Amino acid sequence: MTQDKEPVSAEDSLIARYFKPLATDPGALGLVDDAAILKSQGEDIVVTTDAVVEGVHYLATDQPDTIARKALRVNLSDLAAKGATPAGFVLTLALRSKEDAWLRPFADALGEDAKTFACPLLGGDTVSTPGPQMISITAFGRVPRGQMVGRTGARPGDRILVTGTIGDAALGLDVLKGGAVAGALASDPHAREVLISRYRVPQPRNALAQAVREHATAAMDVSDGLAGDLTKLCAASGVSATIDVASVPLSAAAAGLIAANVVCVETLLAGGDDYEVLCTVPPAQSDALIALGRAAGLTVTAIGTIMAGHEPARFLDGQGQELALKRLSYSHF
Amino acid sequence: MTQDKEPVSAEDSLIARYFKPLATDPGALGLVDDAAILKSQGEDIVVTTDAVVEGVHYLATDQPDTIARKALRVNLSDLAAKGATPAGFVLTLALRSKEDAWLRPFADALGEDAKTFACPLLGGDTVSTPGPQMISITAFGRVPRGQMVGRTGARPGDRILVTGTIGDAALGLDVLKGGAVAGALASDPHAREVLISRYRVPQPRNALAQAVREHATAAMDVSDGLAGDLTKLCAASGVSATIDVASVPLSAAAAGLIAANVVCVETLLAGGDDYEVLCTVPPAQSDALIALGRAAGLTVTAIGTIMAGHEPARFLDGQGQELALKRLSYSHF
Repeated sequence: MTQDKEPVSAEDSLIARYFKPLATDPGALGLVDDAAILKSQGEDIVVTTDAVVEGVHYLATDQPDTIARKALRVNLSDLAAKGATPAGFVLTLALRSKEDAWLRPFADALGEDAKTFACPLLGGDTVSTPGPQMISITAFGRVPRGQMVGRTGARPGDRILVTGTIGDAALGLDVLKGGAVAGALASDPHAREVLISRYRVPQPRNALAQAVREHATAAMDVSDGLAGDLTKLCAASGVSATIDVASVPLSAAAAGLIAANVVCVETLLAGGDDYEVLCTVPPAQSDALIALGRAAGLTVTAIGTIMAGHEPARFLDGQGQELALKRLSYSHF
Repeated sequence: MTQDKEPVSAEDSLIARYFKPLATDPGALGLVDDAAILKSQGEDIVVTTDAVVEGVHYLATDQPDTIARKALRVNLSDLAAKGATPAGFVLTLALRSKEDAWLRPFADALGEDAKTFACPLLGGDTVSTPGPQMISITAFGRVPRGQMVGRTGARPGDRILVTGTIGDAALGLDVLKGGAVAGALASDPHAREVLISRYRVPQPRNALAQAVREHATAAMDVSDGLAGDLTKLCAASGVSATIDVASVPLSAAAAGLIAANVVCVETLLAGGDDYEVLCTVPPAQSDALIALGRAAGLTVTAIGTIMAGHEPARFLDGQGQELALKRLSYSHF
């Protein structure tokens, strides 16, 4: 019997080469086991899972480093909104090819983000597919027992807060697709780059997680459009909401495009891929959360109020007129 | 603004319709949140993730109910081998279509297995794909702190035990592909069905988990072929092994095919998809584990001994001659 001591399968070899360096947590067991161990001292483990598919959630022309970051960050964003501290993740990678030119930058970028966000790789599975590539990540976070921030706790009178700016990623996708925004920004490469990078590489707001846990009555991340996601939160809490559209935070680029009538604000409210935190906070604690955000380098903006009732959330313009949103969210499905 | 109170996206609607009934654990939050809560009283959470891809891990002609069972059971099998009690799972479903004729039996069968194995759905993500369908599951189990059974604890002198029978699934796949086994069993529909069902619907050995935890020094499930998986376990433990091939448990159908020279035993030792538990046990505890298996309705068979050294495992026939295995395992990759 001839048999060398190399890993016995191509999958093992690939895992050892690219992903073992990311498995820094002792619970990952160096990726030599089929399973990982997630320790708990009695706190709750928060579990979230999100997949990205080539041609659906990212473009076939996107680079492997940004794909890796997006795949992990959309999950980190969920943990942030739940008030959870990242604990690790498992990765399922459906690959068409095993080219080093793709895997090396993918694994390196994933490793950088895993380190930046203190969310080590715990395990995974690599499979081959003849179809589009797909990255499915299940991420874990920790919260003190019973303290995960859900969607059901919003109460009438709560202030509605959102981090960062809204709509940039949808504009970035339009630039990449050569839409109206691309034309309008033809002579502004900086603005184009800012918007594109908002689409390709989300900035999960994990720095705000503890503040969300301490102050928010309900929270979620904005991934499918602010309007649609707020609607889901209100439905889960059994409440309604009024949003002051003029307060919704916009980037300079987005504000410029609205002023120039290239896009309308409704498009931004329904645009996807923001990966900002949307949360509701008792009025007396609103300033505290905004201040904690500022201390963490994040802008947190009050954009409206939770109302009693079950009517759809209302979006009011500067004159108090209700906007008619044709579309609430962006659906990949 | 016109907007009804139905779920705002097609994905939400699909989840509510098919998968909410499976989310029986309070930590699943009725699938209305982006995240789930996994409670822990300080025990370790065991995490495992395995994906199945159409055309790679199952056949495009396979029925949705068996696909669902296989997707969950390959993960349950990992938990069993780690000595863990199932706690729940999250599901990523990459779908080409949303036909009720596929989703209904898929979700029903998944729900039945979730109930049978006490492993409720905690959350998930559904994405659309233009390519082959794919089901990625991350499953969770619980073990008392520090008691997960790894791959690194096998010691010289330990007995090597395996549950059930080996090689049937590889023979079933050959039947489905119309290979030599299909021809040999042309007049034996019962044997064909038995082998096919071993390929399509694994029987995870979760009933043995506690006994594995109490007695095994190392364990893993046999998914890529007994020979290759034993080689991995030995490598992780820094030991070698001798297997008495005549002791390897075979089904009546497999034994008949060998007797008739349709297949050779090497094919069975390297065949994939067995989903049996392979474990190593101190000699004094071997009988106890076998008895616990019997009490749980499972056949557990001693097939060899762990040896000192780093040589590849040796497979000896009835005359003590070493078999030359051309191939150690089945690789989908």
